[in-house]
Amino acid sequence: MTATDIERLIQLLAKLPGLGPRSARRAALYLIKRRDSVMAPLAEALAAAAMSIRTCGQCGNVDTRDPCTICADPKRDPGLICVVEEVADLWALERTGAFGGRYHVIGGTLSALDGRGPDDLHISGLVSRAGDPLVKEVILATSATVEGQTTAHYIAERLAGTAVTVSGLAHGVPVGGELDYLDDGTISTALKARRSL
Amino acid sequence: MTATDIERLIQLLAKLPGLGPRSARRAALYLIKRRDSVMAPLAEALAAAAMSIRTCGQCGNVDTRDPCTICADPKRDPGLICVVEEVADLWALERTGAFGGRYHVIGGTLSALDGRGPDDLHISGLVSRAGDPLVKEVILATSATVEGQTTAHYIAERLAGTAVTVSGLAHGVPVGGELDYLDDGTISTALKARRSL
Repeated sequence: MTATDIERLIQLLAKLPGLGPRSARRAALYLIKRRDSVMAPLAEALAAAAMSIRTCGQCGNVDTRDPCTICADPKRDPGLICVVEEVADLWALERTGAFGGRYHVIGGTLSALDGRGPDDLHISGLVSRAGDPLVKEVILATSATVEGQTTAHYIAERLAGTAVTVSGLAHGVPVGGELDYLDDGTISTALKARRSL
Repeated sequence: MTATDIERLIQLLAKLPGLGPRSARRAALYLIKRRDSVMAPLAEALAAAAMSIRTCGQCGNVDTRDPCTICADPKRDPGLICVVEEVADLWALERTGAFGGRYHVIGGTLSALDGRGPDDLHISGLVSRAGDPLVKEVILATSATVEGQTTAHYIAERLAGTAVTVSGLAHGVPVGGELDYLDDGTISTALKARRSL
């Protein structure tokens, strides 16, 4: 019933994570109502991004340049590499502004269930980067899940032959977290890793 | 930290209803990963829709043609006009396939709080369409809310001078609804409007 252009737009919008068929229709109507202020700029932004965005050959970040802004930034410490699963994790770390080194995106976790082995992740690139005498420390910032930690252990083993220090993020009570609402695993980890004040 | 093209894309995606800043980032990364299969087609679909979509001068539907496919369809009963608030409501009715007439989108409801009076809605166009001797019945399918029903009453009054029959959607227990989970208003309406079996 709806015109083909609108139908096609709804189908494509429904593919986005977080949007289903119903919310895609809502989004399409929203866009149609704001043709000049949102729809046309979004079309241009998408076309520009599709043209310009590439994956950094060094760290796996997405950027309009290769090597990416972070890898190319001489102010970032070349001695520190933070290993993350996905670009989203890199962005999360960048938002904190707490990390001054560089990154390495491995592109997921090892997973026997999903059939993802070491060759499906960008681990060899990391190992060769870690061979650079400039690199002092590799921080494994994979998720605190079974798969994330398995991947971290695997990477730590692969890096065992190199001169770099391998570290991981601290586990414990999240800032603002109430004990009553935390899971047992987090509480017992925080207890074991207690520190003197 | 992220490149300007990516940042701009995230900002525009975050404007869509149902997407916040966090889900917009997720959507952007999803698109970047699927550059050729989703991102470029979506850019094209948006550009095409922004170019081609117009509002039907007769009923207010959005379509790539004016008058819209429904208004131009000779198989649709010209004697029946269904009045809806928004294009989304028109789409919802079309999905049922239960209505064979034409529509009139008034563009919202009367609202003293939001300062929307009769002149802000497309009601005059409806009144002049109802003056056509071909039109036999106007079905008021505004929402079953206070504002929707106020608007329906206002339209019914405006149409009182014409020869058309004015009707409204039936209220009652929704199909699949359990009494235990329904509000009192719906149950008492359904009770008052009971019918013999």
